[in-house]
Order: sequence, then C-alpha cells, then structure tokens
Amino acid sequence: MQSVQFWGETLRLLVELAATVAFALSGVMEGARKRLDAVGVCVVGFLAAFGGGTLRDLLLDQRPFFWVRHVEMLWGVLALCVLAMVFMRGRHFAPTAKAMQWPDALGLGLFAATGVHQALVLELPAVVAVLMGLITGVFGGVLRDVVCNEIPTAFHDHRPYAVCAFAGGWVYVALWHLQAPGWVALVACVGVTAGMRGLALWRNWQLPAWRH
Amino acid sequence: MQSVQFWGETLRLLVELAATVAFALSGVMEGARKRLDAVGVCVVGFLAAFGGGTLRDLLLDQRPFFWVRHVEMLWGVLALCVLAMVFMRGRHFAPTAKAMQWPDALGLGLFAATGVHQALVLELPAVVAVLMGLITGVFGGVLRDVVCNEIPTAFHDHRPYAVCAFAGGWVYVALWHLQAPGWVALVACVGVTAGMRGLALWRNWQLPAWRH
Amino acid sequence: MQSVQFWGETLRLLVELAATVAFALSGVMEGARKRLDAVGVCVVGFLAAFGGGTLRDLLLDQRPFFWVRHVEMLWGVLALCVLAMVFMRGRHFAPTAKAMQWPDALGLGLFAATGVHQALVLELPAVVAVLMGLITGVFGGVLRDVVCNEIPTAFHDHRPYAVCAFAGGWVYVALWHLQAPGWVALVACVGVTAGMRGLALWRNWQLPAWRH
Repeated sequence: MQSVQFWGETLRLLVELAATVAFALSGVMEGARKRLDAVGVCVVGFLAAFGGGTLRDLLLDQRPFFWVRHVEMLWGVLALCVLAMVFMRGRHFAPTAKAMQWPDALGLGLFAATGVHQALVLELPAVVAVLMGLITGVFGGVLRDVVCNEIPTAFHDHRPYAVCAFAGGWVYVALWHLQAPGWVALVACVGVTAGMRGLALWRNWQLPAWRH
Repeated sequence: MQSVQFWGETLRLLVELAATVAFALSGVMEGARKRLDAVGVCVVGFLAAFGGGTLRDLLLDQRPFFWVRHVEMLWGVLALCVLAMVFMRGRHFAPTAKAMQWPDALGLGLFAATGVHQALVLELPAVVAVLMGLITGVFGGVLRDVVCNEIPTAFHDHRPYAVCAFAGGWVYVALWHLQAPGWVALVACVGVTAGMRGLALWRNWQLPAWRH
Repeated sequence: MQSVQFWGETLRLLVELAATVAFALSGVMEGARKRLDAVGVCVVGFLAAFGGGTLRDLLLDQRPFFWVRHVEMLWGVLALCVLAMVFMRGRHFAPTAKAMQWPDALGLGLFAATGVHQALVLELPAVVAVLMGLITGVFGGVLRDVVCNEIPTAFHDHRPYAVCAFAGGWVYVALWHLQAPGWVALVACVGVTAGMRGLALWRNWQLPAWRH
C-alpha cells in the first residue's frame, strides 16, 4: 500500500516535471519572438511553466507551492531558459514550434490532471475540479501571453485547446467517482486531452466563432 | 431573528446572481468584439462575472469561493455564454451595449456592497472595506479588458465608474457604523452607486484629466 | 533587545514607506503618459506601489497585508496621486522620470529586502526567498505596465533591473545565514541592488539579447 502511494507521488512529480519543461520552452520562445531581454525571456518561461500550477494552489489555498517543495525545479527551469537562449537560434524557431506541439499537448493533459486531482482530494464539486484542471493547464499560457501583451492564443486561435483539457478533466472525474486506481485516471485524462488535441491539429478542427 | 438572517442571506445571493449575469454579458460582448473563439468568449465572460468576487475572496483569505458554494452559478454563466453566442448577432451589439448600462450600474453597486460587507464582517478598517468593495465591483471588468489586450475601460473613458462604487462604499460603511439594518445599508449603497453612475451617463459628467 | 527589535521594525516600516512613494510616482507618471483619467492614474499608482508587496503576501499566505496594518499608507498614496495630478505638468515629465531613477533603484532594493526577509523568517529555501524578493521588487512595475497595456519595461528595455534585485537578494540570504544583524543585511542588500542599478545606468550596461 505504501509503495502504491509512493508510486503515485513519484508519477505525479514526473508528470509535473515533463509538463513544466514543455511549458517553459513555450514561454522562452514567446519571449524571444517578442524580443524581450534575457531577464524577460526567463520570466516569461517561469510564468508559463509555474503560472498555472501556482494559480491553482493559490485558489485552492494549498501551501507550500510545488516549486517550494521541489526547489530543484526552479533551478532546472532557470538552466533550461539559459540553455535555450544560448543554443536556440532564430532559424530554429519554426521547426521548434512545430515540434513543441506534442509535449505541449501532453503537458496540457498532465497539468489538467493534477488540477482535477487536487480539487477532488479537497472534496470540491466535480465542476469546480474540472475548472481547476482547466486553469492549471491553460493559465500558464494565458499569463505568458498577457505579459507579452498579446491576446492569449488559447482564446482566439479557433483551434480546440482548453476544450480538450475540459473533456479530459471530466474523464478524470468520472474515473475517480468509479473508484478507478489513480494512475488509470491520470493516463486516461492525459490520453483524452492529448489525443483530442492531436486530432484537432491533424484534422484542422475549428471552434465555432461568433455569428456576425 | 432566524428569518431575518435567512432573508439577508437570500438577498445577498440574489444580489450576486443579478450582478453576475450583467457582468458575464459584458464579458461575452467584449470577447465577441475582439473576435475571440467560443472558448475565449466564455472565459472572458467568466472572468468578468467571477473575477472581482474571486479576487476579493483571495485578498480576504475567504474560502470556499462563492462559486464553489453555489456551483449552479458556474453552470448558469456557462449556459448564458453559450446562449448569447448562439442568439446574439453583430447587429444587436450597439442596442445591447446601451441596454446593459443599467444592469451594469446595478451590478457595480451590488458587488461593491458585498465586498464592503465582507471586509466589515472581518473587522477590517473602513478604508480597506471601501477598497475591497471597489475591487469587487471593478476588477472583473479590469481582468476582462486586460485579457482582451485593452487598457481597462474603467481607467480611461473619463466617465465616473469606480468613483461611484467608492462613494457607495462609504455610504455602506457609514450606515454599518450607525448600526442600520443590513438591507438598508445594501439598498443605500446600491442606490447611491447606480444613481451616481446613471446621473453621470445622463449628464455626461467627465472625470478631470491630467493637465498637460 | 526590545529596543533593537523596535528599531528593526521601525526601519522596515520606513523602508517600505520610501519605496512605496517612489513606486507610486512611477505609476502616476505611466498612467498620465497613457492619458488615463483621474481614477486610472490613481489605480495605476496604487498597483505600482502596493502590487509587489501584496503579491508577496498572497504567495506567502501572510495576512493582514501591510497596507491593512498601516492604512495611513493608503491615504498617503491617495494624497500623493492627487497632488501629483494637480501639480505635475507634462513638461515636468522628462526631468521627473530622470530624477526618479534613484528613488526607484532604492525602492527596488528595499522591496527586494523585505521580500527576502519575510520568506527567510518563514524558513523557506534560499532560492525561494530570493525569488520572493524579486517578485516584491519587480511585480509592482509589471502590474503597472500590464494594466497600461505595455510589455513590462523590466523585461524588454535590455538594462539590468531585476538582475540587480536578484544579486541583492543573494547578498541578503548570505548575510542572514552568516547570522549578521538584520540592519547589516538590509543595508547590504539595498546597497548592492541600488549600486548595481546605478552602475548599469551610468555605464549603460546592456543585457544579452536573444541571438538571431
């Protein structure tokens, strides 16, 4: 029993790590595109990586933050930002952005799962849990775009993004209430979210727009 | 006594509900004007509706949030956003924006009253209570405009808006310290705020500008 | 012993006061430059003055906020904003902006020191303490710029700003762990931060940019 709990904790940590790296890189690229200075690029990387999770913990009144419990993540993201600035060049942007879509989709699902999970542990209602998953997954990117003085991509590029996390969140909630093991719910949530996102990108699905 | 308390609670809930609808619609219209996608329009609607109250609860360290205690509000606003997207058209914008001014003014007063009330219950100083009322009333709209990448209307359209909530807040504080019944303070606060706002719109009052 | 503690508390209060005035003025000038109305100018002044410290207290879960414990600061900043609007004119902008660089540098160091200090008192890891100092010092200005719909100056003007607070923060942490008296750490932190910032402005240092 102890070992399952340990496993669950380890898995969750790995999950947050992978998602954090993907989101930090998205922040670095956005910062570079807007020609911020070195500090700006790092800050935007940090906001993208830690913004969603921090907002989740703030709203759920959870302390210490995950980056306080695991300060090595702070150092890791800082190193990542510096390395990205040194080694990535302008001409590598386009392919990198494309290559990032998969880790980003994965990260979205993983972050959403952690948000939903934490809210369910606190016995909050299902819809609030899904909302927390959404916020965890999406608001890192929103903060990144707001600081870069752009309308958040998640809200105006007409491709399903938040909607995928929304669907994945409900899957997690359903499996939780069916008392499925934690890792099943986690894998299912990530699979549905990233799968939907992948399908949407591949099939070029469009969200309905305002009817003018 | 019990029934008065029940009344007070019911009134406050109704109040938050009406204000929430007015603010959600303002968010939906702003999102549509900026041509966000369906997700973006809903998020901006949610931010406008729940942003101010959530920020108030965050600053006052109050949990659970009002939308966690009343999750039906989340569903209601979601339905409202979807309905608005389906039924409202471009050509209905101008009349709708005009028709919204009254519920918006009412919502401003109502939200301000809830903010002031909650701070007073926590025995915070009068000026902090008024500030909390201001934040509750105004920051939903501020978040809405920031996410839509605009300077908040409340800060640059030179028509009194926050000032009305400021005045209404002081009225609430004064009546509270005079130990007036809760509903009197509530009605007076809303009346002063919405009345001043209405007068300002009707008489086309202008805030003083920076002297250049 | 009692008197030393009193001294320390008084010093910290004075520190926050001076930094608050400098930051409020920077907000007022930014708001005026963007031609906000009277309310907008005051709000931006408040955000610049109290934003960083409030975010720090929010993240560290410290209540009551420093502006709740010292409401006279709220009145002071309000008076400052109104006076600035009445007496400062367009033509005084350029010299004022230049004259502000020193109090601003001082304020950056002072705010950073309070952030680091509070985190260390809570026994948080060193890197988190430095981060808190950074946030306290820099995010007032970031919020000011975001509300004014600009990319934060701290992130794109290619002159060291946050980096100075970062260095100063580590000096504070080092002296704290060497058990130096509080005022020594405070003075050293402010000295290093403001000194580096002054040097950077004087020598026109540039942060490295993204290599294209």
